[in-house]
Amino acid sequence: MRSAAVIGTGLIGTSVALALTGQGVTTYLVDRDPEAARTAAALGAGLAATPRAPVDLAVVAVPPAHTASVLKEYQDIGLARFFTDVASVKTRPLMDAASAGCDLTAYVGGHPMAGRELSGPLAARADLFHGRTWVLTPSAFSRAEALHHATELIELCGGRPVIMGHAEHDRAVALTSHAPHMVASLLAGRLLGAETAQLRLVGKGLRDATRIAAGDAALWADIIGSNAGPVGRVLTELAEELCAVVAALRELDDSAAGPRGKGAAELLAALARGEEGRSRIVDAERPADATQAAR
Amino acid sequence: MRSAAVIGTGLIGTSVALALTGQGVTTYLVDRDPEAARTAAALGAGLAATPRAPVDLAVVAVPPAHTASVLKEYQDIGLARFFTDVASVKTRPLMDAASAGCDLTAYVGGHPMAGRELSGPLAARADLFHGRTWVLTPSAFSRAEALHHATELIELCGGRPVIMGHAEHDRAVALTSHAPHMVASLLAGRLLGAETAQLRLVGKGLRDATRIAAGDAALWADIIGSNAGPVGRVLTELAEELCAVVAALRELDDSAAGPRGKGAAELLAALARGEEGRSRIVDAERPADATQAAR
Repeated sequence: MRSAAVIGTGLIGTSVALALTGQGVTTYLVDRDPEAARTAAALGAGLAATPRAPVDLAVVAVPPAHTASVLKEYQDIGLARFFTDVASVKTRPLMDAASAGCDLTAYVGGHPMAGRELSGPLAARADLFHGRTWVLTPSAFSRAEALHHATELIELCGGRPVIMGHAEHDRAVALTSHAPHMVASLLAGRLLGAETAQLRLVGKGLRDATRIAAGDAALWADIIGSNAGPVGRVLTELAEELCAVVAALRELDDSAAGPRGKGAAELLAALARGEEGRSRIVDAERPADATQAAR
Repeated sequence: MRSAAVIGTGLIGTSVALALTGQGVTTYLVDRDPEAARTAAALGAGLAATPRAPVDLAVVAVPPAHTASVLKEYQDIGLARFFTDVASVKTRPLMDAASAGCDLTAYVGGHPMAGRELSGPLAARADLFHGRTWVLTPSAFSRAEALHHATELIELCGGRPVIMGHAEHDRAVALTSHAPHMVASLLAGRLLGAETAQLRLVGKGLRDATRIAAGDAALWADIIGSNAGPVGRVLTELAEELCAVVAALRELDDSAAGPRGKGAAELLAALARGEEGRSRIVDAERPADATQAAR
């Protein structure tokens, strides 16, 4: 890959551009806000200009709800030979792109598993994707050359390509990212009713548990809303479990000093499942870390 | 304070003992497992022995369900002139202590807001309580001298004493610690059904959101079960909000590509409340941090 374009110079787009420029790829920066593109260029991310001839690959780095319309717009003017995107949801942009009449043969969906609570070009970092999983979701229409270009992009950014189906991806992020984000937001939202004295008891546990809730609400409403089906299914199951815990606690509360039976056992079982589930994260992390260390 | 005893040489008890010994207080270590007390002593936390004369203050550092019976046992043998504890719940141990016939005039409940995912004496640190809030919940029976001794303990450990009512404390930790722990455990528990491929998409967000779920399930079942009423009330409200979000997502999913109305607005409102609630944590944190920096 010799030339690329990044459409949308926010945190992710500018980080991609910084990485590509750092690897010697001629990178063009495009944003509906010319000021944002110029800021990214001033950071050394590339050229705030539209290329004269089609570049090898364009990266659409805008929120999920706008991904398909932006893809269509820049395919129409022939900005690049191939296109990918970075939206956190993959099914809806693909459906939208099909409805909008995009050239799906030249497109491969992508999702780098990296981010920060901060946003905008000033928060961008060339190494944002180093060692991070970057999912690609080629569709039945995607040409092999489009997938090769997207894979090369990931390698240039230092990421680890993982290929999945778009529906499989969306179910996975519903479980590992979108539903947890929603729950963290509800937990954090409960603090609005808290008295100041209560907030003095906030410790590292709650700070960590609600850190993701600090993310931009409008962007996350778009992400979660665009993956409404899978997220709704995870949260439905979670709501059922939460109601079972509430019932167990009510039983424990009623029998306060008395014998502790079913309620206590259910509470312990739920916490033990959490301890075991949490250990799966650590386990899944280890092989990757070991690979890293061996390099 | 010239002498103290720590009953229960786990993470918290041993950390208290390390801090006291470091401040020149003669500290005795008592544990129903003599090996644990000897380990703490080998770490420099104090003397693995029972004092010949009553010490100034004994710190009961055992799980909430056992706090009152241990308090009774050591009041009966006259281990110390005054007693405090470190249980994460304050109403139930007080009620249990009253039922057991403890001397409530010599007792002040306490709860240091510090901990680690690790447990046991080997995880202890003398600076575990540095700059951390440490709640004291004197009852109507507590003598002023008991409160003075407990306050001195906190100062020796480098913590910041905060006085609250026991019920007020329990409502506050239900909101800021126990309910979030339960929710993090349910989130982490959902990963048990996940496929390995899905776990590859786990990022820092979920790792942080579920970190507290790695805590010892049996200890947390005791803590949450001992605060069943207040935790149940927070989780009931949370379950109601979760059901509203599920309904909003269902509406969004049904109207997939169509116009996005009430569901989208509700989703955004919930996420915006989370963003705002999360900022209350940061706000509450700043003055304290500023004080720290100014010292």
